[in-house]
Amino acid sequence: MPEPLFLGVDLGGTKIYTALANARGKILAEVKIPTEAGGGTQHVLRRIVQTVEQVSGQSGVNVRPAFLGIGAPGPTDSKKGIVHQASNLGWRDVPLKELLEEALGLPVVVANDANLAALGEHVFGAGQGVADLVYVTVSTGIGSGFILGGKLYSGASFGAGEVGHMTVDPDGPLCNCGNRGCLEAVASGSAMARRAREMVEKGRGQGILQAAGGKDQISAVSVSRAAAAGDREALAILAETGKWLGLGLAGVINLLNPALILLGGGAMQAGKPLWDAMEEEINKRALQALRRRVQLAPAGLGPRSGLMGAIALAIQSSEGKEETVFAFREG
Amino acid sequence: MPEPLFLGVDLGGTKIYTALANARGKILAEVKIPTEAGGGTQHVLRRIVQTVEQVSGQSGVNVRPAFLGIGAPGPTDSKKGIVHQASNLGWRDVPLKELLEEALGLPVVVANDANLAALGEHVFGAGQGVADLVYVTVSTGIGSGFILGGKLYSGASFGAGEVGHMTVDPDGPLCNCGNRGCLEAVASGSAMARRAREMVEKGRGQGILQAAGGKDQISAVSVSRAAAAGDREALAILAETGKWLGLGLAGVINLLNPALILLGGGAMQAGKPLWDAMEEEINKRALQALRRRVQLAPAGLGPRSGLMGAIALAIQSSEGKEETVFAFREG
Repeated sequence: MPEPLFLGVDLGGTKIYTALANARGKILAEVKIPTEAGGGTQHVLRRIVQTVEQVSGQSGVNVRPAFLGIGAPGPTDSKKGIVHQASNLGWRDVPLKELLEEALGLPVVVANDANLAALGEHVFGAGQGVADLVYVTVSTGIGSGFILGGKLYSGASFGAGEVGHMTVDPDGPLCNCGNRGCLEAVASGSAMARRAREMVEKGRGQGILQAAGGKDQISAVSVSRAAAAGDREALAILAETGKWLGLGLAGVINLLNPALILLGGGAMQAGKPLWDAMEEEINKRALQALRRRVQLAPAGLGPRSGLMGAIALAIQSSEGKEETVFAFREG
Repeated sequence: MPEPLFLGVDLGGTKIYTALANARGKILAEVKIPTEAGGGTQHVLRRIVQTVEQVSGQSGVNVRPAFLGIGAPGPTDSKKGIVHQASNLGWRDVPLKELLEEALGLPVVVANDANLAALGEHVFGAGQGVADLVYVTVSTGIGSGFILGGKLYSGASFGAGEVGHMTVDPDGPLCNCGNRGCLEAVASGSAMARRAREMVEKGRGQGILQAAGGKDQISAVSVSRAAAAGDREALAILAETGKWLGLGLAGVINLLNPALILLGGGAMQAGKPLWDAMEEEINKRALQALRRRVQLAPAGLGPRSGLMGAIALAIQSSEGKEETVFAFREG
């Protein structure tokens, strides 16, 4: 009998990242294409199917995959297979499991992408063997996923992990969610870019402006680039961002007493100045006994945390082991 | 064969609350005596033994209890049976399990009191059948316990649930833990009393002063009493306290997506003015989908949440079911 194969899809607002892997998580083929979310739900679905055909073709293996796991960027009901809300895709209550099963003739399991990234790190990455871990992604927004007691914890309605919407600055800037002072509003890549734009509008931040190549191109990347070149204003933005991130993570540590926090996402590439400010604030605000117990580390799978989580979910689902994946609720 | 009996002890800084119960949690006898923590560890141990003898005598049942569960007021390692830190008792690394097993000749299991209160509500109280619930106690300090995926979640080193030390006001008042702006520093009974004292020192708060009977007697109870009599300044303190509590709980909702939050502890007896302000702030700051999923309710067992949790732990431990109680960690 040929070895069973599994498909993982990391569906994002800008790209679809798909891989074919074996039961040990070895990737046989992978492909990344633009999502083209503007084309509508049917268009995105066709593009997902296209990536599945591409990896199957590339791998040269003539075996029907046993299961497909897919991570979606928003609140997703794994039990019903519905993506409730994915703003980046313009989706509302899309029955992704049903639609993909029809299109592919394969069993499909869906979950939230940040939750899957935590699972990916736990099964294949830097969190192997760690029962209580938190994965945090800092990019345009801030999301997280929890492995608690050795299982993916997704809450009473698959919404756990919205660390980006913890209030950290009660009178702080407005967040997309409508609240003020969310962690995401002060510590995300978008927040870094906003601070830089505000500087430039006041006639400062010339180093950042130069790194960006123009006022409309200012992003978290331009801030990081200017900081790497020693620009003091860019370094100050990284330090402030790191401080807020540390304040939020100290709260997570005090609540959940994890053994490990893994950090991923683009904004973490800002490197040492952000990381140092973050650690300093955590040391100040987390209870000492809990701070001593927790390690902070970069995510081990880089841009593949979510993809490998989708594969892990597919593998575990095929084994009828959803219960080892999710801490399912009784009532 | 006679039915097996279980002992539960809620060990606090001011009182020892002990009960003898059957396997369905029916209390056959209970006793509450002052802890007399000032007398030292051996003295407190003797007093615990004394309560055990008292409930056994009172019950008139001549059956040796099968197991004793005990909740301690501080970080407690359930696996090793050690109370790491209990400031109210002046304890550091007290091997409570070993000491009590020697003194009583019974198997003993120890845990943190707020964690046990969550378990008590889950097994016998208002949280029955709810897999994902948070218990929060607001009194002198603020503590919490989590039932996640149907199990008590106590973290990588039995320290989970320190919601009182989440930063909610970055530049806020100093907390006992050394950090600034912890939830406990702005939303506990102690914080209510501090606000009232500050008012009185400025020549205001006369209604509260009257309810207290003297400046040195000002407490959360005097604030609640004055508020109940319609005192505007007391009502403002309750509203501010509730607002901070709501901000903290909104963070817990966004992180954990619980189905139920149960509130206990003395400060919750301040009633509607505090509760309304708390709910208003939660509605403002929790993500809508998660806010809709969660119910807020008073703890169902009142002052017995922790005691019943200790009994539940004893029952489950005697069944060799620690794994159904704790989400034990792998690594």
